[in-house]
Formats: sequence, structure tokens, C-alpha cells
Amino acid sequence: MTETKILLDESEIPTQWYNVVADMPNPPDPPLGPDGKPVGPDQLAAIFPPALIEQEVSGERWVPIPEPVREAYRLWRPSPLYRARRLEQYLGTPARIYYKYEGVSPAGSHKPNTALAQAYYNREAGIRRLSTETGAGQWGSALALAGRMFDLEVRVYMVRISYEQKPYRRSMIQTWGAEVLPSPTDRTEAGRKVRAADPDSPGSLGIAISEAVEEAASRQDTNYSLGSVLNHVLLHQTVIGLEAKKQFEKVGDYPDVVYAPCGGGSNFGGVAFPFFADKAAGREVRLVAVEPASCPTLTRGHYAYDFGDTVGLTPLLHMYTLGHDFVPPGIHAGGLRYHGDSPLVSQLYHEGLIEALAVDQVPTFEAGVTFARTEGIIPAPESSHAIRACIDEALRCKESGEPRVLFFNLSGHGHFDMAAYDRYFRGELEDFAYPEEAIEQALEHLPKVEAAQS
Amino acid sequence: MTETKILLDESEIPTQWYNVVADMPNPPDPPLGPDGKPVGPDQLAAIFPPALIEQEVSGERWVPIPEPVREAYRLWRPSPLYRARRLEQYLGTPARIYYKYEGVSPAGSHKPNTALAQAYYNREAGIRRLSTETGAGQWGSALALAGRMFDLEVRVYMVRISYEQKPYRRSMIQTWGAEVLPSPTDRTEAGRKVRAADPDSPGSLGIAISEAVEEAASRQDTNYSLGSVLNHVLLHQTVIGLEAKKQFEKVGDYPDVVYAPCGGGSNFGGVAFPFFADKAAGREVRLVAVEPASCPTLTRGHYAYDFGDTVGLTPLLHMYTLGHDFVPPGIHAGGLRYHGDSPLVSQLYHEGLIEALAVDQVPTFEAGVTFARTEGIIPAPESSHAIRACIDEALRCKESGEPRVLFFNLSGHGHFDMAAYDRYFRGELEDFAYPEEAIEQALEHLPKVEAAQS
Repeated sequence: MTETKILLDESEIPTQWYNVVADMPNPPDPPLGPDGKPVGPDQLAAIFPPALIEQEVSGERWVPIPEPVREAYRLWRPSPLYRARRLEQYLGTPARIYYKYEGVSPAGSHKPNTALAQAYYNREAGIRRLSTETGAGQWGSALALAGRMFDLEVRVYMVRISYEQKPYRRSMIQTWGAEVLPSPTDRTEAGRKVRAADPDSPGSLGIAISEAVEEAASRQDTNYSLGSVLNHVLLHQTVIGLEAKKQFEKVGDYPDVVYAPCGGGSNFGGVAFPFFADKAAGREVRLVAVEPASCPTLTRGHYAYDFGDTVGLTPLLHMYTLGHDFVPPGIHAGGLRYHGDSPLVSQLYHEGLIEALAVDQVPTFEAGVTFARTEGIIPAPESSHAIRACIDEALRCKESGEPRVLFFNLSGHGHFDMAAYDRYFRGELEDFAYPEEAIEQALEHLPKVEAAQS
Repeated sequence: MTETKILLDESEIPTQWYNVVADMPNPPDPPLGPDGKPVGPDQLAAIFPPALIEQEVSGERWVPIPEPVREAYRLWRPSPLYRARRLEQYLGTPARIYYKYEGVSPAGSHKPNTALAQAYYNREAGIRRLSTETGAGQWGSALALAGRMFDLEVRVYMVRISYEQKPYRRSMIQTWGAEVLPSPTDRTEAGRKVRAADPDSPGSLGIAISEAVEEAASRQDTNYSLGSVLNHVLLHQTVIGLEAKKQFEKVGDYPDVVYAPCGGGSNFGGVAFPFFADKAAGREVRLVAVEPASCPTLTRGHYAYDFGDTVGLTPLLHMYTLGHDFVPPGIHAGGLRYHGDSPLVSQLYHEGLIEALAVDQVPTFEAGVTFARTEGIIPAPESSHAIRACIDEALRCKESGEPRVLFFNLSGHGHFDMAAYDRYFRGELEDFAYPEEAIEQALEHLPKVEAAQS
């Protein structure tokens, strides 16, 4: 009997992160300021520490992982790579299916991989506090954990409606000793402005970002921390793919296709970029970003400069976008409800080097339940997007008889998403197709930067 | 740098369970029927398969683990043994603290170790369905998972008040495809009787047991499954302690004290019995069962024959008991709210071979939060009882300067207990001392079997 889980020793935790920029055919487009000029490191120094700014613009292939970060990774890393034999048997497919399980982290997702690194570099820079925003709470809980591990105070601005309706990740944040406030608050200019106009505002991720950034920008001892989208965040997540490659080597196998859910891009970048290095060196491997059909940034968005946040405070990023004022429907994969996408992922997609596909909500939950009933683990709805795509390919392999090797990142467990499963079982979930006319409308809302650039 | 997690290969999953009966100085007292006579295997055959009945009365030291059960264990076993360096540093103790983490199972606790075995033996015996009861849902979710792994239908009678107030473990049970009914139902004689008297009955574990047993007894294709207390259940849980011993061997260390939370006894038996084998062979090791002060079965109960359930349908078991009609206060460690205790654990305690201590609810949550803030993992409130006891001993080591080796079983994570953490942070949790007068009262409620026996 061969193994179900392919494990590595703690000594095999990567010592370096992989920077995909080194293998991209073209350099990444820089972020732009409101004046249409590239944003320089100096302008980021008010809210990020020097080491992270350096990583954000670095072209070096390998970036050393500081020993204290590797040390903290040992709490759950290396994460297991599973061979999904029970799922294969159930599907009757000749495909060999593997998944990397990031739900073993204390926060239950891949998010702590970067949260720990960010907390470390901030502490090294003499920073005492971090501010951040969170929607459903996955990122906020990861940063709360990281703050605790590196002795930093953390304040989380949590979208008020989630704060009230999804109290359990809020409690998790508090358990790790971070402060969590329902946003909009009356502690920031941005928050007070919103509350003046609408005292009962349910909040939004855009408002919460504004509050967190404002706090970081206005306090010397405080920096801001972001859980996805930016280059340094994706860099830190590459521990996932780097470990996976070692694990495939151990069993003498290699994926034909790599799937990961894609919202802001840190999950996809984390698992797929290290395989992109092989692809750049001539190896055949397909890298597929899977997004919700209701928020189809890569598959139906525009490749253009747009704001990273809803209210237009951040620099402009060159990325696939549905328009910064697009509000995705309330699907149960909160981590994928983002109007834009990582500039690195966007550029690779634009250049035809990676693929993307969109899946509907109901079939995604169906795939998640199939997975839970065969492999045991109840997946996060975000992760189920990759599972859906992988199962569909495995069924095509069944038709064609091809024994392809399929691999996906199971980015988290669904223990805090059981209410969504409940709704699925009651038949209350719906699919939301992104409307055709919205594509045109989004174009009109894009900031006019092309002109400013020239 | 030495390792944080001590891991084993899947090939090192034990091939045999350890039966503590072989090393007990005296044979266990048998269960008795209402007539005061020992209950024979025949009387159990209506609700248990032959293999489990055999294990229940076996005196063999080693019981082989069937290959399909080991195969299913591979989904998460061997579980990691952690060295709690961050906790040690925080406490400033010279003690070396280790914990075994059973929360890595898909159900998030140690319960699937026996659920899988029970499902397997039942299927081998030609059984198609299992019925069981559950309070907060930990056991019900474990059996739902096991039923799915071994193609058995599972029906869970879930205490109605929990079904309504704690919907997430209910959803978990459904995700794995089991049926879950709020008890009392109108599908059983027992349920109908309760509903006739009180249409709005919130249910109780006692009523749910009655419903599950009645269903199993009245259907040829259905057996009953229990998550703790019985000998075969503790037997299956010994994979925990057996793995832990191998892991200690790997790092060349050995515990001076082993702690486990104790409700029905399966957690304690699972981790402590394999160490008892060493103790019986002359090695010095203390084995400590930790229970809630509000339900102090071992530390303040009577050692007597009593019913296993509240309504008096089960055979009489010789155990420490607070009286079968004792209703423990609504503390947030549902798994420890049991009036009695495993007969094996009870006998070892009665004979002075193991120890017990009781801890209060508020200091227990305090210990759980300390653990989460140092080791990252948010523990289940049940597990926090062992953490409390271990931290107290580590602080005594700090006083005395003794570098003792302390080991506890972290039986599960607290992802479904965040509401309890919330109440702790809001200062709403209370300690409940078991009242002095209740000890006397319990005596009066004990069934009069001594007479019938003679």
C-alpha cells in the first residue's frame, strides 16, 4: 500500500521564497500614482517596512526566508500533500489526483504564510502595531495569529455586517489577542465620513481598507498589512508550491495541471508560480486559476490600470478588473469576491502563460460535498472552486482514458462556513452570472490613466 | 534547531490496539442486568456486532487493527506530537511540555479513531445502518464521517436544544451524508412518550440514547454505536498513546506525567493506557485524568453500580458516578458532561493506579487562551482541562526548578466552540462547584444492585 499523505520533515521547509518576476518574459508594470506616474518606494514607506517594499519590486529569483519565520512555519509546515485515492475511486477516473492541504495552519487557511512574514519584517523595522481590514475574517485571523507570534499589536477593521453576522472568526481574532472593530468606526476620518452620511452603514471592504490605511499612514508606530494582490504577498505564499514540488519528487510524479482558486491571487500564485519556473524552463504543465462566475475577473474583466480598493485611495495597479466600484454578489466564497486581481497573475494571464476558468456557485458546493464525502475534509468554499475544476477534468480523463496527473491547492477548511453548506443543503444557494452589459459599463468606470501615462 | 513536531510515517500507524485489561491487577467487574446478574454477550447482540462484543470482554493484551481501518486512519494519522516550546518559554518553566494533537482528524477530535473501527466491524457483520445519539455533535459528526467511509447509513439523534442552538456540527453531520434528527422525535416509542408529556421538550442526552438504542434494537439491519465509556471504545482510542510512545522514543524522551481530559473516559484511556502498560512493568509515570469541577465524577463521585444513561435503560456499570439522574450544569465542555465514567478508568482509579483532579471552568478557558496565544492552535474546551492541569504543574516546576516532562492529549480544536470563547472574553462564564449536599443525595439515587447480586 502506498501512502495517502506525502510528508516532509521540518528541515525541508523551504529556505527561500521563489520570485516569479525572474522568469517572466516581460518586467511587471509598476503601480501608478494619481498623477499617472510610477509610485516609488518612498511613497510606500509610510505604510510598509523597507524589506517588504524591496520584495515588492525585486527581480531576484530567490529571496531568503528569515530563520524566525521558518521557525514559526514549523507550527504546521510542511503541510501534507495528499493523494486523493478515495476521490479517484469514486469518480472512476484514471487520473491521479493530488492536493496540498493548507487548512492545517492554526488559522485554517494559507493566509498565515504571508501574515507571519509581514509581521516579522515589520517588527524588525521597529514597528509596534499593524492595522488591516478583513471581510469574513480569514485574513484578519491570520494576521492576529502572526501578530501574537511576533509581539505586535494588531487592529483589524472588520466589515460591520460580517462582524455581526459571522461572529466566529471575530472571536478567533480576539482569542489571539488582536483588537477587532466593526467598520465603519468613528476612529478614522474615512469612517466618520461614512457614518455621518449613513449611521447604519453595513460597511464594505473598501471602507475598511480606507480606515486601516488611514490609521497606518497617520501613526508612526503603525504599518498596514495586506493579505493578497501585492507581489510580496504572492512571494511569501510560494512556500506552498515549493513544498509541493519536493513532495511530487518524493513519489516520482509531476502534475499535468495545477488548479487553484483565484480571488486576489495569493493562493494561485503561491501554488502555481513555483511550477511556472519549470514551465519557463520548457517543462509542460498547465496552470489554471479558478474563479467564481459571479466575479469573473480574469475570464471577463478588462486588463487595465484600476484602483486596488473600492473608494480609490490606493495606487493604480495594472490588472484584470471588473471596475473598482463593482460589488460582487454575496456568494459564499468571500475570499474570491474581489473586483481585481494580482498584477503578476494578470500579466501572466494576459501573456497567455497561464489559464483561467470560471465556475458557478452551486456546482462548486456540489464538488465540495463530493470531496468531503470521499476524502473526509470539509473544504472552504474558496477551495471548492479548484475542486470543481479538478473533478471536471478528472471526468474528462474518464471519458478519454487519459491518466493525467491533476493537482489542486486545498487552501483551507470549511469549519467557519457551515452556514453556507446549510444553505446549499436547503437548496437556497443560487448561481449568479456576471451580466453581459456590466462588461461594457465597467469600461466606463475605469480611471483614465492611459492618457496621464503618455 | 530541533523539531517542533515529531512525525511518524503512515507505516508506523499501530497494527494492534492495546487492551489495558491484560495489565490490570484485577479483572474488570462485569455489567449487570436489571436482575443484578452479569449481562452476557447474547444480550448485547441485538445492538452490537460480534467483533465488538468480543473486544468488550477480551483479556488479550493486543487486538489487531483491521487493514481497512488502518487504511482509513491514513487520512490523518499518525497525528503529530508537538513539543510546546513557545508555551514553555512563555511560562518560563524548566519543564519540557509535549502534546499529541488529535484535532487533525476531519471531524476535529479523537472521536473518529473508534467511529471508523465501529463502522468497519458493523459493515463486516452485514449491518447496513447505525443509530447513535449526540449532544453538541462531536460524536455524531465522527460517526457520520465513519459511516461515509464504510458505506453505512447513519442516523443521529441530536439533543433538540443543541440541534437548534449549535447548528454547525449538525451541518457537518449532513455534509458527510448522515441523517440528523432533533430528539425527542416521534419516530420512537421513547420519543413519542416524552413529546406527549412535553411537546416542547428541549431533549437530553438520556432521551437521545433511548431513541437510538430503541431503533437499533427494533431493526434487524441497524446497530447502535457509542462514542465513549465502553471497553471497546477505549481500546480503539489507544492508537493515540501507542503512537505517542513511538514519538517519544524518536526524540529520546519520556513523560513523567500524562494528562487527559476525562468525561466518559475514551480520551483519557486512549492516551494513558499504553503508558499504563509501562507503569505495570515498573516504569515510573503518573497518569492524570482531568475533569470539570462542576461534574467531578472521579474526584467526588461514588464507586458503585449505576445506569449508563439517564433514564435507566442500559445495563448497570461499575463506575464512579454522580448518580444517573445528575444533570451537570451547562458548561462549555459538552464532552465532559457525563454523570459516570468508563468502568476501566474507574477501576484503575479506585485501585490507586491512576490519579484524577478537577479544574474550574474559568481557569480552564484562561489556560486555553494562553495555549492559543503561544502554540497557535485554538483548543476545544474539553482539551483545555488537560492544558490547565499541565500548565499548573509546569508552574510548580518553575518554583522547584525541576525539569519534569509533561505530556497532554490535545483531543480537538475549538473551531466549533468560538461562541464559548466569546462568552469567556465577555466575562460571562462562571465556575460551578459541585455542591457538598449533592454527594449524599446521589447515594440515595443509586440503583440497589448490591442486594440483587448476592
